[in-house]
Amino acid sequence: MNIKVIAHLMGLILVLEAAFMVPAVLIALYDGDMLVVQSLLLTMLAMAVTAGLLLYAARTRRRSFYAQEGFITVGLSWIVMSVFGCLPFVISGEIPLFVDALFEVVSGFTTTGASILPDVEAISRGLLYWRSFTHWLGGMGMLVFLLAVVPQGPGSGYSLHLLRAESPGPSVGKLTPRLGQTAKTLYLIYVALTVLCCLFLLAGGMPLFDSVCTALGTAGTGGFGIRGDSLASYSHYLQGVVTVFMALFGVNFSIYYLLLLREFKVALLDEELRLYGGLMIGSIALIAWNTAPLFGSVWEAVHHSAFQVSSIMTTSGFSTVDFNLWPPFSKAILIGLMFVGASAGSTGGGIKCARILLLMKELRRNIQQALHPRAVRLVRVNNRGMDEQVIQNVNAYMAAYLVLVGASFILISLDGYSFETNFSAVAACFNNIGPGFDAVGPMANFAGYSIFSKLILTADMLLGRLEIFPILTLFSRYTWNRSK
Amino acid sequence: MNIKVIAHLMGLILVLEAAFMVPAVLIALYDGDMLVVQSLLLTMLAMAVTAGLLLYAARTRRRSFYAQEGFITVGLSWIVMSVFGCLPFVISGEIPLFVDALFEVVSGFTTTGASILPDVEAISRGLLYWRSFTHWLGGMGMLVFLLAVVPQGPGSGYSLHLLRAESPGPSVGKLTPRLGQTAKTLYLIYVALTVLCCLFLLAGGMPLFDSVCTALGTAGTGGFGIRGDSLASYSHYLQGVVTVFMALFGVNFSIYYLLLLREFKVALLDEELRLYGGLMIGSIALIAWNTAPLFGSVWEAVHHSAFQVSSIMTTSGFSTVDFNLWPPFSKAILIGLMFVGASAGSTGGGIKCARILLLMKELRRNIQQALHPRAVRLVRVNNRGMDEQVIQNVNAYMAAYLVLVGASFILISLDGYSFETNFSAVAACFNNIGPGFDAVGPMANFAGYSIFSKLILTADMLLGRLEIFPILTLFSRYTWNRSK
Repeated sequence: MNIKVIAHLMGLILVLEAAFMVPAVLIALYDGDMLVVQSLLLTMLAMAVTAGLLLYAARTRRRSFYAQEGFITVGLSWIVMSVFGCLPFVISGEIPLFVDALFEVVSGFTTTGASILPDVEAISRGLLYWRSFTHWLGGMGMLVFLLAVVPQGPGSGYSLHLLRAESPGPSVGKLTPRLGQTAKTLYLIYVALTVLCCLFLLAGGMPLFDSVCTALGTAGTGGFGIRGDSLASYSHYLQGVVTVFMALFGVNFSIYYLLLLREFKVALLDEELRLYGGLMIGSIALIAWNTAPLFGSVWEAVHHSAFQVSSIMTTSGFSTVDFNLWPPFSKAILIGLMFVGASAGSTGGGIKCARILLLMKELRRNIQQALHPRAVRLVRVNNRGMDEQVIQNVNAYMAAYLVLVGASFILISLDGYSFETNFSAVAACFNNIGPGFDAVGPMANFAGYSIFSKLILTADMLLGRLEIFPILTLFSRYTWNRSK
Repeated sequence: MNIKVIAHLMGLILVLEAAFMVPAVLIALYDGDMLVVQSLLLTMLAMAVTAGLLLYAARTRRRSFYAQEGFITVGLSWIVMSVFGCLPFVISGEIPLFVDALFEVVSGFTTTGASILPDVEAISRGLLYWRSFTHWLGGMGMLVFLLAVVPQGPGSGYSLHLLRAESPGPSVGKLTPRLGQTAKTLYLIYVALTVLCCLFLLAGGMPLFDSVCTALGTAGTGGFGIRGDSLASYSHYLQGVVTVFMALFGVNFSIYYLLLLREFKVALLDEELRLYGGLMIGSIALIAWNTAPLFGSVWEAVHHSAFQVSSIMTTSGFSTVDFNLWPPFSKAILIGLMFVGASAGSTGGGIKCARILLLMKELRRNIQQALHPRAVRLVRVNNRGMDEQVIQNVNAYMAAYLVLVGASFILISLDGYSFETNFSAVAACFNNIGPGFDAVGPMANFAGYSIFSKLILTADMLLGRLEIFPILTLFSRYTWNRSK
């Protein structure tokens, strides 16, 4: 294994992360929160020193970089980013316990949005901004950002392996033949949509700071709010803007690229997009019907149903009402959507519509094959035959997913919370949603869990965001036995 | 499609089912329950007439019988068996509502053991016997029985397709080259173990009728008790006998065949057996540790933990205590075991240890392949490379399983029960266990659900027992479009 290249990339990531903390420093300076400024600067210093050591120690010309290195770089860099990223909270004392701060920042980077803060409004604006910004960065991915901004020589073969390991979904959509260009295009679309979201929020009279933070959280489909009641106290217009943008950020970004290329027909006929849209609209209708008696009017029910469905399905986790109080049928639909999740190649989490689509097509193929063994059939998506290796990987992913979700559920049950709390806590963390039901509902938080359970749930968030394999690779005996 | 052969088999099955009702008639006669005798005889008459019509109409020489016919025969015959099998309850008025009686008998045949009876002790002994006997018959399978007793000409090619469609597990274990002989051997082992179980119960002073019914329910891993408190009021010895025999009936029957052939080493090194045993012993230890404070002594905790784990993992569903009152950690382990289930080729339900084993091995293979793409690896179980088609089918099974479990959960949530109740109700029915938690816990029943939900859960029991594909085939557009 080429440990030096991995260390080199880790160093670059720490430099970038330190640079991204600058706006938070400026906000804290503006507010005169000198303790926060200090804690941010100390963290940046620690990152700079570590990065310097790594970059110095890891000078190498060996360029060999394969899938294994890709997985390890991604798995390791997310852990390192989170450990450093949570330091300002610990040093400033705003989240005194390291495990809590780690939970909060991993929740940020993984765009989960689950919080251990009993009172989010007690946090300083500088750190609130940093907390929301982790959503934005984690949404598209730090290593994808690195690929977008760091110029690469033609010999550096790591782009594909990094993109593959960090991007969500069963297969990597190369937008352009050159991967650096693909990463750049992705980030340009991402920035443009985020700015647009922010402008729409400002237009509705939301204060600048709130707009920026909310836009960052919406873009990353994260869900950290800056008010104790999430988005409940904003106007219907502002809630509507967030509803629409959450749904937009849950779409595969290659669809936007197709739209830019004016390939409207290809884009709109995309099978994953139709599944995503269909499930969303169907769920909104069913929940609006089921919750109508709770609201004054049908439109009120549609408004809140649309917000919550968009929020849960894109795995954002914002809320406008306490949907923990909704009837069991609506909650059951939301639980189902938690697992389905958003589209591949979006900033959302969950199993992803593309995988569900592939699984259903594989199922149909296998039934037909069982009934007529002599016919050989391909699984086709968007009229293209899928590679059997991709299908196999989706199956392996599902197996790992089920075992890890089940094991996490059993382990956190040691804390003695209710079945619904534990099950939805794991579902909300693994699928990067944020709030669950009952004791971890949208108006509650994860503060009550033990340190052990918080660590399990932190691991779940990372496993969910990185789609299991990078983290498994990192802790696999096989990786370290065979390393040369 | 060869509808005539299907109709012919259906006729034979009704004849057999009518014959199997004779002991129930004798018990009812002995007890002087003339209403029950009447209802049984009327049902038998209806079966005989239907069978006669089917056998007369279905005279054919066309022997063509493929996988499709196998699936349809199995799916259809289980529905027909259940519809006729529940008539005595309806006619006698002991379960007045047809939907309830159907639920109860499907629960019997599928060896689920979920009941809608608020007071089981109010049922007559003749029908209690029939109810327990459905467990026994469904455990090994009616069509397997047919293969065992009806002599087949060399030209009849339907044995394999029927065995494959009715037997649980990812692949059919042919014990002997001739399938009729395999079916016969399976039933001989089954009868021998059932008789042994009954003798051990009698030796502990259990009354004859109780012993027979309990042995039938244990053998089928069904779980219908004949007392309101399941097995709570029997002695520790009797509970222990049932613990051991439930575990034995959850073992793949080909292991017993290997033992008969004195292949002890091959039998005991079987990977599925070790996974099954390991999970069982580990769960017993963890639950005993977790529940020890509830019981007087450690041994008491081990006793009840062993009984409940054996009951849930083999998907029997008997109980000696109200495990709904156990701490969340123990309940979470039981929920996990509900999904794992027993071994393939046993009378138990669930996903089956063999599938879990295959999924884990596929996962390991795919991670290794992702890291080292050039190496081609086989998935090996018991040192034999597995056919990729078997692995694909396991994956397709899991996809269908998840979608059907999820959809059922959402649909029955319309009734407004708690999350825990609905989730465990679906888990308990689909995996053929019986009791769940909360409002469908071991000391409660399914009577409170609406007719709609009862039908959903009835379908789940059939889907679970027949492992989805026969039922899907029956309702697939593809089947009926292509039929010639």
